[in-house]
Amino acid sequence: MGGPPSESLSEGDNVLLYYDERRKWLVRILPEKEFHTHKGILRFRDLIGKSYGESALSTLGERFFILKPTTYDYVMNMQRITQIMYPKDIGLILLRLGVGPGKIVIEAGTGSGAMTVALANAVGPDGHIFTYEIRLKFIRFARKNLKQAGVLDCVTIKHSDATLGFDELGVDAVVLDLAEPWKVVPFAYKSLKGGRPLACFSPTMNQVEKTVLALREGNFADLETVECLVREMRVALGKTRPSTIMVGHTGYVTFARRVTQQGSEARAARPASENLGRRV
Amino acid sequence: MGGPPSESLSEGDNVLLYYDERRKWLVRILPEKEFHTHKGILRFRDLIGKSYGESALSTLGERFFILKPTTYDYVMNMQRITQIMYPKDIGLILLRLGVGPGKIVIEAGTGSGAMTVALANAVGPDGHIFTYEIRLKFIRFARKNLKQAGVLDCVTIKHSDATLGFDELGVDAVVLDLAEPWKVVPFAYKSLKGGRPLACFSPTMNQVEKTVLALREGNFADLETVECLVREMRVALGKTRPSTIMVGHTGYVTFARRVTQQGSEARAARPASENLGRRV
Amino acid sequence: MGGPPSESLSEGDNVLLYYDERRKWLVRILPEKEFHTHKGILRFRDLIGKSYGESALSTLGERFFILKPTTYDYVMNMQRITQIMYPKDIGLILLRLGVGPGKIVIEAGTGSGAMTVALANAVGPDGHIFTYEIRLKFIRFARKNLKQAGVLDCVTIKHSDATLGFDELGVDAVVLDLAEPWKVVPFAYKSLKGGRPLACFSPTMNQVEKTVLALREGNFADLETVECLVREMRVALGKTRPSTIMVGHTGYVTFARRVTQQGSEARAARPASENLGRRV
Amino acid sequence: MGGPPSESLSEGDNVLLYYDERRKWLVRILPEKEFHTHKGILRFRDLIGKSYGESALSTLGERFFILKPTTYDYVMNMQRITQIMYPKDIGLILLRLGVGPGKIVIEAGTGSGAMTVALANAVGPDGHIFTYEIRLKFIRFARKNLKQAGVLDCVTIKHSDATLGFDELGVDAVVLDLAEPWKVVPFAYKSLKGGRPLACFSPTMNQVEKTVLALREGNFADLETVECLVREMRVALGKTRPSTIMVGHTGYVTFARRVTQQGSEARAARPASENLGRRV
Repeated sequence: MGGPPSESLSEGDNVLLYYDERRKWLVRILPEKEFHTHKGILRFRDLIGKSYGESALSTLGERFFILKPTTYDYVMNMQRITQIMYPKDIGLILLRLGVGPGKIVIEAGTGSGAMTVALANAVGPDGHIFTYEIRLKFIRFARKNLKQAGVLDCVTIKHSDATLGFDELGVDAVVLDLAEPWKVVPFAYKSLKGGRPLACFSPTMNQVEKTVLALREGNFADLETVECLVREMRVALGKTRPSTIMVGHTGYVTFARRVTQQGSEARAARPASENLGRRV
Repeated sequence: MGGPPSESLSEGDNVLLYYDERRKWLVRILPEKEFHTHKGILRFRDLIGKSYGESALSTLGERFFILKPTTYDYVMNMQRITQIMYPKDIGLILLRLGVGPGKIVIEAGTGSGAMTVALANAVGPDGHIFTYEIRLKFIRFARKNLKQAGVLDCVTIKHSDATLGFDELGVDAVVLDLAEPWKVVPFAYKSLKGGRPLACFSPTMNQVEKTVLALREGNFADLETVECLVREMRVALGKTRPSTIMVGHTGYVTFARRVTQQGSEARAARPASENLGRRV
Repeated sequence: MGGPPSESLSEGDNVLLYYDERRKWLVRILPEKEFHTHKGILRFRDLIGKSYGESALSTLGERFFILKPTTYDYVMNMQRITQIMYPKDIGLILLRLGVGPGKIVIEAGTGSGAMTVALANAVGPDGHIFTYEIRLKFIRFARKNLKQAGVLDCVTIKHSDATLGFDELGVDAVVLDLAEPWKVVPFAYKSLKGGRPLACFSPTMNQVEKTVLALREGNFADLETVECLVREMRVALGKTRPSTIMVGHTGYVTFARRVTQQGSEARAARPASENLGRRV
Repeated sequence: MGGPPSESLSEGDNVLLYYDERRKWLVRILPEKEFHTHKGILRFRDLIGKSYGESALSTLGERFFILKPTTYDYVMNMQRITQIMYPKDIGLILLRLGVGPGKIVIEAGTGSGAMTVALANAVGPDGHIFTYEIRLKFIRFARKNLKQAGVLDCVTIKHSDATLGFDELGVDAVVLDLAEPWKVVPFAYKSLKGGRPLACFSPTMNQVEKTVLALREGNFADLETVECLVREMRVALGKTRPSTIMVGHTGYVTFARRVTQQGSEARAARPASENLGRRV
């Protein structure tokens, strides 16, 4: 059937087992184990030697495809102890912050580690993520998720209160996902290289207002707050339509960039009381 | 004022000149040149030696901040000869396709090069983008934008008709942004490694229907079509609200993954006529 | 406690029993009956003599408020045998069609009668609704809902196939909510007074395309298709945000107005192939 | 060509002149006048004797259709001195408030009169609207718009400050559209019949928070705040898609219903600090 040669799966590899659009599982191949589903049992030893894209039959004769997990799959299939950041928001943040190979990024807080995995995958082995989390329980969870995603080498988890400051200086970007981000703004300023960006994720409008105020007063410029919505489409020949139910809200994302102190003059000319954010 | 040491700007560096949220320009520092705006003239030689985050005054005494451009800025400020893909869509695509350091990606077509710049920035020096474009005029444009973004080394622009096939085998991901993507689906299949993903951007529902049909029939699984909307917020103390005008639509993005031929059996069990896409 | 005098409730009155925002029931006061809920039993005889706005205690001591049902409540709390049209769509249709006191309106099909109740409430005793439904089972359902809403006097339910034509001429507006509305467009044309409007509700894009084509070719002008989305907000002091889950789609509504045959000339100047709908 | 007999137009009639979806004008037929457009001049005397749905040619030979204006047209084509309420919001409010033939409604403030026209059209000759406005300039404007719409008989415009109270008792519904609606909540309570509804339109989240708080504390129940979005679709055979630009926000609408004082007990069981609005 043509196509390029594929790689043989072996012990320890992560695979995304796909039954249908709703039923997918991210699992690690451990030969002595089995995977139990409503559609029968899959023996992991039957997967070894197969290639990504191929399939295996369960004990009930149901076919499961073996897919190569992407960042999206690690994020969506990880164990969650907190509300995680969603791909729609993560993707936009990575792009706006310019998070790519070799970058150094600070994150606070770690939570379940969804954003951390995405950041680590984006910076790769030459970059590094310093992620702050105060709750030990979350750290244990996140470490498991980071380990599963194979990115522990380029992540340092710090059990520390971000509202007391960061240890790193000269970082390329900062991502905030905590309850009171405005308290961390001065420390983000201190840690960022000049002219570099910050993103802050918050579920409520009130958090956004406080954060935007702190950013304006804290010598950040180019502020913009956005909300990202994703609609799934039901595509069927002759009856295509959006899905009946959708995620209505996860949170707002605020972007800003560190500038030096003369910012106060520019600010004076554009009073914060009139418009703290973007003008349309 | 504390903070880490910043880098000195020199000839040839790209900077984002920031006046306010609506007025930003991506420019390259060429000492003999000037930059003219409604707010006066900036002499590039005055920027040399400054650091990102600092500012400069125009001949009219207006202050411009010097920011470090991110992928977002390259995409949003490039010269456009076509409708470009927007950051909201690009970010989601990169994440779902797992485009990161070292990956090999095929793109068709290049257009103005917005997606190409984002792909190149994401894969970095160890990865590579093969981008197909049939119109010479677009290639000239895209090459200029890629050069400005400094990513020409990891991009190969191919002046070739994607509906006739791709040259590369064993790639990690495929991105389609052309008028009749369904014609390219069999070639995407041939070029992708097993179990690897494809994304297709299309403005109309009719394109989506045809593409989804071609993907189902072409041994792709895990289909999902989404539309991504971004709302800007006007954040002002005591009067926060969404912006009055928003971008209502750019396009739909369809995701799928290459599986081997047994897919036909799985398909038979879940008739295409009932639901070609995701079930909610 | 001030305020105007209220009306005494008596047998046969409809009331909306309100426990909290999620738990409301539309019921008719029948003295010999009881109303059973998770929060205890309410005896209807205890409600008689009370006024709207007052409350009653269940056998478990839980308080239920007695509200005056509005059109919205009849629509949202009726027995459903079909997907009903939602208030967001109904409200817009009534306004655009100018459905008010004394108007004569044709509806096809009746379904569960949600739109019918809203139309009847809007035209009042001096107007009339002729509603077509081919399935007897739906007619029985709708009649029950119309009777509960007390609007049977100004509604004629016709057990007839709308794709074979309407009996009424000179009506003020037509509302279509059926699977193949394009088949009914010529009959809507025949029944409408000159220059009068039509609205058509359809869940899928494909239905919309066919309907718009039929309207253009059937001497209708001023076409516009819209989709209406409603987001609920969670309002809480200091933590206000949109709801996490929302209704992602119900359907598209197409509006048009009957014009006389010269329309063909105007059409020729604006080719249907370029834009069948509204230009932005 | 069949169809019902149409009415002959005569002096003083309102017509909607339709050139295309973007170019429509609401005008009154005054025989001695002409109507000037980019597409030539229309003489009103040429319209007299024609029927709705027919057309007339301008001096440049361009065809204009003569449509019967609906509530929607009066709202969208009126002279505006303020931001008006949009049909999407008006339609939902009328439905939820049960505003129909014969109802008595208080509105504050009048503004340009868009909502007032819609309310008056909905209640008809047997109902009445009392609308409060403090600014004389707006009253003059609104009166002109109400006169054009032919609804002055069922509207009383009151030049009075709504934050000082309403004169009417026992009304069926209250609509608030002013800067500080929370100040008017106690007066709305006093004027409403028991168990009857109120709607409040506000552009910002901060207004919504304050209003919801005032409603909870002011013995209103069944609170819900929503935001309504309308997307226009570009419908073209084989290339159907949403419009590129859309209205991103007009305002939030909060609904509530007057209950008697025992409400305080119910409230105590569901602390306002946790959730002032609807639970999902």
